Amino acid sequence: MHKGKLRIGVTAPASRIEPALAEKVAAIARTQFADRGPELVFHPQCYLSSGHFAGDDEARAAAFVDIANDESFDALWIARGGYGSGRLAERVLPALNAAARKKTYLGYSDAGALFGAMYADGFQNLVHGPMPADLLREGGETAVRRALAFLVEADPRSVEASVAASHPTAAFNITILGHLLGTPFEPDLSGHVLMLEEVAEHMYRIDRALLHLTSSPNIRRVAGIRLGRCSAIPPNEPPFGQTEEEVAKHWCAVSGIPYLGRADIGHDIDNKIVPFGRLPGI
Amino acid sequence: MHKGKLRIGVTAPASRIEPALAEKVAAIARTQFADRGPELVFHPQCYLSSGHFAGDDEARAAAFVDIANDESFDALWIARGGYGSGRLAERVLPALNAAARKKTYLGYSDAGALFGAMYADGFQNLVHGPMPADLLREGGETAVRRALAFLVEADPRSVEASVAASHPTAAFNITILGHLLGTPFEPDLSGHVLMLEEVAEHMYRIDRALLHLTSSPNIRRVAGIRLGRCSAIPPNEPPFGQTEEEVAKHWCAVSGIPYLGRADIGHDIDNKIVPFGRLPGI
Repeated sequence: MHKGKLRIGVTAPASRIEPALAEKVAAIARTQFADRGPELVFHPQCYLSSGHFAGDDEARAAAFVDIANDESFDALWIARGGYGSGRLAERVLPALNAAARKKTYLGYSDAGALFGAMYADGFQNLVHGPMPADLLREGGETAVRRALAFLVEADPRSVEASVAASHPTAAFNITILGHLLGTPFEPDLSGHVLMLEEVAEHMYRIDRALLHLTSSPNIRRVAGIRLGRCSAIPPNEPPFGQTEEEVAKHWCAVSGIPYLGRADIGHDIDNKIVPFGRLPGI
Repeated sequence: MHKGKLRIGVTAPASRIEPALAEKVAAIARTQFADRGPELVFHPQCYLSSGHFAGDDEARAAAFVDIANDESFDALWIARGGYGSGRLAERVLPALNAAARKKTYLGYSDAGALFGAMYADGFQNLVHGPMPADLLREGGETAVRRALAFLVEADPRSVEASVAASHPTAAFNITILGHLLGTPFEPDLSGHVLMLEEVAEHMYRIDRALLHLTSSPNIRRVAGIRLGRCSAIPPNEPPFGQTEEEVAKHWCAVSGIPYLGRADIGHDIDNKIVPFGRLPGI
């Protein structure tokens, strides 16, 4: 647990957020912890716009490095997913210093493209969990409060229930992890319980991506796979004929990977905290 | 060029076709070459249906192996793309015999998932080009005739114009090649001119997939990339702000891969023949 006032820097390596969203999240942080609330600093880069992205690659990479390398920040919180984090890996990784390696990083979905690369590079405090943009979901305050409770108080109720001292864990969006395979940014997941979730992909694409993942010799060395929620799946034409859990079980059986059941993660307000590696203190 | 009557076996490792389509393609083959027309044999598996697929994995794999291993067939022609070929790789590859290694294989799109794996396994007569299902496109007879002219007469006009003796080539759908990276089915493309095409993917997905491909140490050893057509791209929200060629040039520049210009391939009736490796006789 953190001693003084926790300082959290927020940056947006993928899509932008609105200043009004930042204000609402800051207001939650102020009221959630009485006098022990964190200091939340939204980097102005969060509000930039460059086509698909919250500013161009240079601006997004610079903001990430600004916060990561600043030892006055205890944590770097990813503002939002979308697409764009992976574009920064080759630019950001060589620029990170010793302070960056001590920091906690929190986010999910597209952020996994950077987190995976950082985990491959030996970073130890990477965490899958809710982001400020989750406030845009109905009931999203629950998710934002969970993320803050984890960062500020290491609240054990924020953590996915199957996370245990017995195995390191990792959590990824299925598509994002697939796009790391065969690159220098592919993390070694040997012995990990791998939690996977997906959103807005056709079932045939989920099947194809899980075939890809479970064909990887690296992924075949995981301790097992847990399937998070796969939400907003567009209708398959013709109907695919299998649920996402049947698909996951099939590829686990084919590849010899233990299927361990469901994980309490996904693109929703119930999305829980999952550490990359082991949580400190458990 | 083939001496006697060429025998072509057709199988559908992904989506099914209708018997009426097979009849129309057979009729084209009968009239295109006077008395030198090929014998076209559609495996009955082409018409099976199992959810998304032309029969279950076992039926599709068995049909592929039936034709591939039968030395009375000179060529195996993939009936149609969709999704499903990659599901068969681990099942089909160990079952293929010496006759299979002498045969010519023709197809594109999803078929690349099997062709890539076979190329990784040393198969030498794999060819990207039109399929029977291209007859469903407006003006599709042109594409079907081109495929047959290549198989029956090795017609040089059927071949993509930049294919040359100076470099081996390979042609893939971008998404399909991405799903081979980091698996035992990833072909070694060192020194190849790599031609890439895409269909029905958002520009941000094309960008993400090309970031993935060009981050691969294997792909960074290609002689260069040529971009085929990227068609039916759904609107990006917000607008991506770059064309597919700008995206391809960007990732080639970042990764140090020579960008060689456009390739005359794509999901359309102008899709040309591209060999995996070198064409015999050039």
